[in-house]
Amino acid sequence: MDRLWTNARIATMAGPGLGMIERGAVAARDGRIAWVGPASEAPTAAETIDCEGRWITPGLVDCHTHLVHGGDRAQEFELRLQGASYEAIARAGGGIVSTMRATREAGEADLVASALPRLDALIAEGATTVEVKSGYGLSLDGELKMLRAARALGDERPVRIATTFLGTHALPPEYADDRTGYVDLVCDEMIPALGGLADAVDAFCEGIGFTPDETRRVFEAARAHGLRVKLHAEQLSNQHGAALAASYDALSADHLEYLDDAGIAAMAKAGTVATLLPGAYYFVRETKLPPIQALRDAGVPIALATDCNPGTSPLTSLLLVMNMGATLFRLTVEECLAGVTREAARALGLQTEIGTIEPGKSCDLAIWDIERPAELVYRMGLNPLHARIWKGV
Amino acid sequence: MDRLWTNARIATMAGPGLGMIERGAVAARDGRIAWVGPASEAPTAAETIDCEGRWITPGLVDCHTHLVHGGDRAQEFELRLQGASYEAIARAGGGIVSTMRATREAGEADLVASALPRLDALIAEGATTVEVKSGYGLSLDGELKMLRAARALGDERPVRIATTFLGTHALPPEYADDRTGYVDLVCDEMIPALGGLADAVDAFCEGIGFTPDETRRVFEAARAHGLRVKLHAEQLSNQHGAALAASYDALSADHLEYLDDAGIAAMAKAGTVATLLPGAYYFVRETKLPPIQALRDAGVPIALATDCNPGTSPLTSLLLVMNMGATLFRLTVEECLAGVTREAARALGLQTEIGTIEPGKSCDLAIWDIERPAELVYRMGLNPLHARIWKGV
Ligand SMILES: [Zn+2]
Ligand SMILES: [Zn+2]
Repeated sequence: MDRLWTNARIATMAGPGLGMIERGAVAARDGRIAWVGPASEAPTAAETIDCEGRWITPGLVDCHTHLVHGGDRAQEFELRLQGASYEAIARAGGGIVSTMRATREAGEADLVASALPRLDALIAEGATTVEVKSGYGLSLDGELKMLRAARALGDERPVRIATTFLGTHALPPEYADDRTGYVDLVCDEMIPALGGLADAVDAFCEGIGFTPDETRRVFEAARAHGLRVKLHAEQLSNQHGAALAASYDALSADHLEYLDDAGIAAMAKAGTVATLLPGAYYFVRETKLPPIQALRDAGVPIALATDCNPGTSPLTSLLLVMNMGATLFRLTVEECLAGVTREAARALGLQTEIGTIEPGKSCDLAIWDIERPAELVYRMGLNPLHARIWKGV
Repeated sequence: MDRLWTNARIATMAGPGLGMIERGAVAARDGRIAWVGPASEAPTAAETIDCEGRWITPGLVDCHTHLVHGGDRAQEFELRLQGASYEAIARAGGGIVSTMRATREAGEADLVASALPRLDALIAEGATTVEVKSGYGLSLDGELKMLRAARALGDERPVRIATTFLGTHALPPEYADDRTGYVDLVCDEMIPALGGLADAVDAFCEGIGFTPDETRRVFEAARAHGLRVKLHAEQLSNQHGAALAASYDALSADHLEYLDDAGIAAMAKAGTVATLLPGAYYFVRETKLPPIQALRDAGVPIALATDCNPGTSPLTSLLLVMNMGATLFRLTVEECLAGVTREAARALGLQTEIGTIEPGKSCDLAIWDIERPAELVYRMGLNPLHARIWKGV
């Protein structure tokens, strides 16, 4: 073995429950978990790290972010608190179009540089895999630039980046009178041009976004190019988007405050993950809760993510996401931890590679200065990360 | 001058508004602010620091914490999420009594050691002054031990600690049948024994805490010993505690969700600060908002604090407190920033010493990697602190 972490308490997240090993050890070889079990039975290794009783969890996974974007919306936030109307903010250049403009104006290197502090904040709390969406370029060049910037983040930092193409995030102003033309552009030019730049395809199916029929066209184009899909669904209203996504074998449907029973049943049947985004729920002061108990009853896997974005969730803390999942959504400690590890991995289609501490998976670990896993969910604003391991290092 | 920070944008918080100086400088001599103004008019100094356009605010002030305590309540949090009743949690040893037991069992050095990570989290975000209450010892020795531990924190780290005696935080079990006996102990033995260990006296005036008459006795004893008072008031019900506190010229009344107009008028007249604690509001899922607009209309100063405590606000981030103040309470950016600087200083009676960047005050500064002050309130989980200065260093 290359390295052995021993004298640890381990939450493998491989079940049952947290998959706890009270006096445990993990061994890595060639960047992969080669062995996990009781410390008394551990194999020898070239290097042994005494964890002094600390807890080890899988490295955290943020499975839904808009981490790459130009500018911020702090001024819009400030104006809104002063009582400015949405109309006044739009006149002052606010809203998603302002992020689109700033993103279009930014060079690829600018986008990387501005995203790095956000990525570093996630990494500092133990994140080892981060999904990043496009969706503020809204032109062929702009979307590809965003995806290249997202990929480049993985060269700048020791972290796995999963990219998602979100061309149908908003209708760009130049297509205001030609919705079909824009969806044509997404399906006929952007998706075919993705090459290996995107790992999945997403859309924003909503009254203020794209219709189910438009979403279906995007999903068809993704399928034709061998790409798995995801969906921003049922955030503000019930468009039956989750059921549509499930019918395309979607990896995940995300947000889901307005999800109905038929959508839940379809997700359960397809194995589509419910990715809940409590940061957005909190920040926009939503009051309608996602149907947590019905999701549990149907056996739909539940993931949690930051939704890091400048308009509705300027959030870069998976620890805080877990606290919000518990405090606002009443998820249990086990559900919160699974939501940012095992189920977040599943939401990215990476469940055989990451998300639990099991032999064969990438050796991505977070080592914590805590006495019990519940502390990771309970505390707000305190980061007990002791060390973070990515690919065994 | 000893040191000069120049090429900075400064929010002095001395008014009007944020007290902005666009191209500013601050000079320190003997640990105090000796000069602040336009960089072009700055005096010379032995050492000059180029702030490269960064923003400087006053060092942050957390004016209400229970930072020193034994144990935590993560397990209770976990049980509650699993649906355990309050009764079941009490049977399992939970609630404030569990914190009292852990605090009584801890040595003074243990209390210091366990509080340091929490204090370090506050310091890492620019806090230069932190208030710490007693209130989990609930015996003469236990309370004095907590206050000594709080004072010791100021020897361990470069930070100003303000201490508050909170003997009437809860009724200890051994006095369950003798409320009067316990208030006697607080007034006749504890308060006279404080010496210089406490800077102020606080109480928990609530249906589940102490009555207004009991609170009045504590205030009388504090007055007899020359100590200013504060009050946990109107958190769960309207006990008219804020008006009572104002009648004793209280520094602050804290929580205030159930505050009424008479209480607001009394506070305005006395100059008593309203310290709002959005972390506790969030964590216990309170739905009744404090009367923000009425407080504004009456001209009551508004402070914000973490209320860091293991039961109802395990929170150690003043940046998050500002975000919660804005998101949950709809305070403006200016109100949030004033709430953790100028008004927090006033809530501690330290308004002539700290809280704004003005000549004569302690040179306590926070230097931020931001483009506008609103970013400090808008973001969640990202710490843009570049440097922190306490007493000029
Ligand atoms: Zn999103
Ligand atoms: Zn308190």
